[in-house]
Amino acid sequence: MHRKSGPRAALPCPPYEAVAILWRMTSPSPANAHSPSIGLVGFDGDDTLWKSEDYYRQAEQDFESVLGHYIDLHDAGTAQHLLKVERRNLAVFGYGAKGMTLSMIEAAIELTDERISAAHLRQIVEIGRRTLQHPVDVIDGVREAVTAIAARWPVVLITKGDLFHQEQKIERSGLRDLFPRIEIVSEKDPSTYARVLAEFDLPADRFVMVGNSLRSDIEPVLALGGWGVHTPYAVTWAHEAEHGVSSDEPRLRLADTAWQWPDAVAAIEAGNE
Amino acid sequence: MHRKSGPRAALPCPPYEAVAILWRMTSPSPANAHSPSIGLVGFDGDDTLWKSEDYYRQAEQDFESVLGHYIDLHDAGTAQHLLKVERRNLAVFGYGAKGMTLSMIEAAIELTDERISAAHLRQIVEIGRRTLQHPVDVIDGVREAVTAIAARWPVVLITKGDLFHQEQKIERSGLRDLFPRIEIVSEKDPSTYARVLAEFDLPADRFVMVGNSLRSDIEPVLALGGWGVHTPYAVTWAHEAEHGVSSDEPRLRLADTAWQWPDAVAAIEAGNE
Repeated sequence: MHRKSGPRAALPCPPYEAVAILWRMTSPSPANAHSPSIGLVGFDGDDTLWKSEDYYRQAEQDFESVLGHYIDLHDAGTAQHLLKVERRNLAVFGYGAKGMTLSMIEAAIELTDERISAAHLRQIVEIGRRTLQHPVDVIDGVREAVTAIAARWPVVLITKGDLFHQEQKIERSGLRDLFPRIEIVSEKDPSTYARVLAEFDLPADRFVMVGNSLRSDIEPVLALGGWGVHTPYAVTWAHEAEHGVSSDEPRLRLADTAWQWPDAVAAIEAGNE
Repeated sequence: MHRKSGPRAALPCPPYEAVAILWRMTSPSPANAHSPSIGLVGFDGDDTLWKSEDYYRQAEQDFESVLGHYIDLHDAGTAQHLLKVERRNLAVFGYGAKGMTLSMIEAAIELTDERISAAHLRQIVEIGRRTLQHPVDVIDGVREAVTAIAARWPVVLITKGDLFHQEQKIERSGLRDLFPRIEIVSEKDPSTYARVLAEFDLPADRFVMVGNSLRSDIEPVLALGGWGVHTPYAVTWAHEAEHGVSSDEPRLRLADTAWQWPDAVAAIEAGNE
């Protein structure tokens, strides 16, 4: 994308949190307010455009198979311990397959009281490598739906996780050509979305986010005064399953599949005008 | 940074490689050409603005101390083996401390023929965690030099590596306020710089890149027709030490310390007008 913005690029960024608060304060209560039309539609990547969680679940199963050589999986609450280690490590390692692999290694050493062999730990490194190299399967209807939406509104891909891995997945998905702008972010909270919207110079009530995670894709956007289209994925990581979105949220639309996305956005625009 | 670019954001990106080639073809031979003035000054992060490689060297030493329990370090060429495993893994793990940690774990298992204990592998995970949490020491003169340059020209931070770790380092450096734009990239090659310049809508001959790595910061920018200011750091990772920059390159300036950066950029601008 070209920007005629050489000098403008020198302007300092506003403090993101302040922007978020300001928007929340000035956004009209949107359910029945008269707002301008939609100016940007954002799409999540993992488990919205392409399958991802399945491969992490497979990694978890493979991890448990390795651990099964040492401990009784039913007693140990292995998955719970892994999630505990993962959460403790999120602050250090961030999201993504590399952090997950380091967490698995650490959890395996902890869970086996340092009895696990180097050969088995090598297998865990291999599980991580396979997860990083998993094939990228685009979900049914996604290409058609994004194409239809991009014909009417500007679109942006907003995806969370490891920069290197996400770039590879975008390439392998074959969807790159649909997205003039791609934002790879380390966390999906209100200040992240506020920064993206500030870059587009767009008020939150003209923004729709499409995604599978209420916690990451919907809740922070609603908090800013934006709109959400939620398409649940078959499996959800326990960490993403925790959220505070009410089922009768007026700025949230449910779409069972990607095929319904264009109608869902159009409905928001129609009600929004 | 605000951009009045809602509709423009919907334009498709040009193919980056094509842009890079086009610029290389159309850029004037800049040594004695009459070019417009400098429009953007880019700064590398690690080992240019703050110390980084020292912590990776420390990690390497700590790693070798662990391995010393199993193998004769003089015979085994441990560092060479580590570099070999790291390079093999760059295509899977990318740059950064997490990839390094996974590589160290894998190398340790390989080098010890799977004899290494879980307790020692746990120490290697801890080496990685320490590297990810190392203090960020801003290099002498950097704040003053960047402040002086930012008063005359737009500036951008272009840093390579893990998104999450780089964001943390930028925060801890206290330099965030100096940079209205921050680009965290997974690789520093001509197409990456071409993409950044396309976002600023700037021809390469108006761009100066300041950095410690001839391979990552200087060579790809010169290849596009841009300018380089090189400030060597005391230690250089072997992977970054390989480059094809000639010592009599006319678009390259040497600055021994950050204190000389403003004069170096001013000299390029003066010769460039």
